[in-house]
Amino acid sequence: MSLLIVGSIGLDNVRTPFGERTEVLGGSASFASLAASTFGSVQLVGVVGEDFPDSHVQMLRQRGIDTQGLQVRPGKTFRWGGYYELDMNQAHTEFTNLNVFADFDPVLPVDYRSAEYVFLANIDPRLQRQVLSQVTKPKLVILDTMNYWITSAKDELIKTLGMVDIALMNEAEVRQLTGQPSVVKGAREVLSWGPWAVIIKRGENGATLFQGDHVFSLPGFPLENIIDPTGAGDSFAGGFIGYLSELQDLSQKSLRQAIAVGSTVASISVEAFSVENIRNLHRDTIAARYDEYCRLVHFDSLALKPVLA
Amino acid sequence: MSLLIVGSIGLDNVRTPFGERTEVLGGSASFASLAASTFGSVQLVGVVGEDFPDSHVQMLRQRGIDTQGLQVRPGKTFRWGGYYELDMNQAHTEFTNLNVFADFDPVLPVDYRSAEYVFLANIDPRLQRQVLSQVTKPKLVILDTMNYWITSAKDELIKTLGMVDIALMNEAEVRQLTGQPSVVKGAREVLSWGPWAVIIKRGENGATLFQGDHVFSLPGFPLENIIDPTGAGDSFAGGFIGYLSELQDLSQKSLRQAIAVGSTVASISVEAFSVENIRNLHRDTIAARYDEYCRLVHFDSLALKPVLA
Repeated sequence: MSLLIVGSIGLDNVRTPFGERTEVLGGSASFASLAASTFGSVQLVGVVGEDFPDSHVQMLRQRGIDTQGLQVRPGKTFRWGGYYELDMNQAHTEFTNLNVFADFDPVLPVDYRSAEYVFLANIDPRLQRQVLSQVTKPKLVILDTMNYWITSAKDELIKTLGMVDIALMNEAEVRQLTGQPSVVKGAREVLSWGPWAVIIKRGENGATLFQGDHVFSLPGFPLENIIDPTGAGDSFAGGFIGYLSELQDLSQKSLRQAIAVGSTVASISVEAFSVENIRNLHRDTIAARYDEYCRLVHFDSLALKPVLA
Repeated sequence: MSLLIVGSIGLDNVRTPFGERTEVLGGSASFASLAASTFGSVQLVGVVGEDFPDSHVQMLRQRGIDTQGLQVRPGKTFRWGGYYELDMNQAHTEFTNLNVFADFDPVLPVDYRSAEYVFLANIDPRLQRQVLSQVTKPKLVILDTMNYWITSAKDELIKTLGMVDIALMNEAEVRQLTGQPSVVKGAREVLSWGPWAVIIKRGENGATLFQGDHVFSLPGFPLENIIDPTGAGDSFAGGFIGYLSELQDLSQKSLRQAIAVGSTVASISVEAFSVENIRNLHRDTIAARYDEYCRLVHFDSLALKPVLA
């Protein structure tokens, strides 16, 4: 497999009802790469400043993540600070300092250009296209985005959506992007722009896959404590594409499994701050919770007797 | 089977983004009885005023619902008016006129006292106990409640919870009642008060069953249009207990199926105003959507190869 992941790499200050952490590893590409690295090697593209701790780079490399594409630029690393209240589905941003990320110019090392699996995490949709233009023959391209780009670069985003296979969004983003109050109709509209599948991320409430008329839905994994939801969506995406890239199969069966793997990885990730739970994530840990997930949602088909029929 | 349902019966004014209806049949017992009547006869206990249309009574009877326990009192029928905006999980109440419901005195006809399955829909927890005291040997008692009783009669509610088998609540109610931000911990606390199971209703996001350490979760059925969510929870409850009372079985397998039946019935109910979709609900319609539900959530177990193990 060859899996390329491009996105943000940053240092986060996070406060939740369970505690706080400062200057911890964050960013969409960090979470997604670490999550995916459980399934094989990852080619990472991102930018950090000269202040980025070398220990993080070493940690990524130890997980089999290729950091050739990790640019180090004069200046400071991207920083985000925020907090969560009891409703962990809602992040409250206190500050966003783009720093070197403001001038991110994602140039792919030659080795990366033959990547078959590509995750375009949430960055400017123009940069997402710039990355795509450098990849010669991708088998699967997944795009994530956020409300910021829907507001500021909607046409660019729709253009980029036309070039990808799967779009990852949450319910509010689908509604905002399509103007459809019904997420089902919204997802269908996004499909009409090009992607062959849309995955709706629902945070604590799971995820739903729309692929043509085919729908798959998974509830959230019930957790006693959600310690830090930062990176949940990117952990999901990393687990999802990592699993598919290992499997080298895009059948409906595999997509459903991949969504369950992604949800599993996300549920493990949010039980600790930052990347603590996924920096050493073992596939046995994923497999055990995946089995619990299977049992969680299983119910038997119905044999209704025709008493009143 | 003998299934007893007690709750409110009213006339609703409802406005949603899809239209409005005035003076339509509403109330928890109406929705629950009609939903349950697909599976067998129902003994209804409730109160209406002299203005309650006889056509509604006839309709209930035609569905095999015993209306011996339907009291007609001098005065007006309970009325509720409200509306929903795009977020259909949130009802906005415009008025509540209790009318004859204010003095509801649930006395059970003799025939009803041997009921084996009992659904105590959302009424004063003291009245719920009054009903229970008249039932000689129930096999399964399910209680529903709402924030009003948690605020105004918390101790009475907890006392009543100690006498039932299954508690039905939404997430906010569990949090409010237990003070636990984690729904998982909150459900566990409710279990410690007596019920052997708690079902968390999540509206569009499905339902979760907690039974000891056993958990079952179902996502919501993806609907293109939710026309009127009024009565969704009671349609769920009616389908759930109706199915169990027909099956005469409380195994985990049956409980999981019953939750899927309840969710199926609720998803059908909200696709039309008031009781329009459940007043003539046929078990074949339920069976067809149930099968879709099975397909919606199915995913295969994982055979992770030990590549990196």
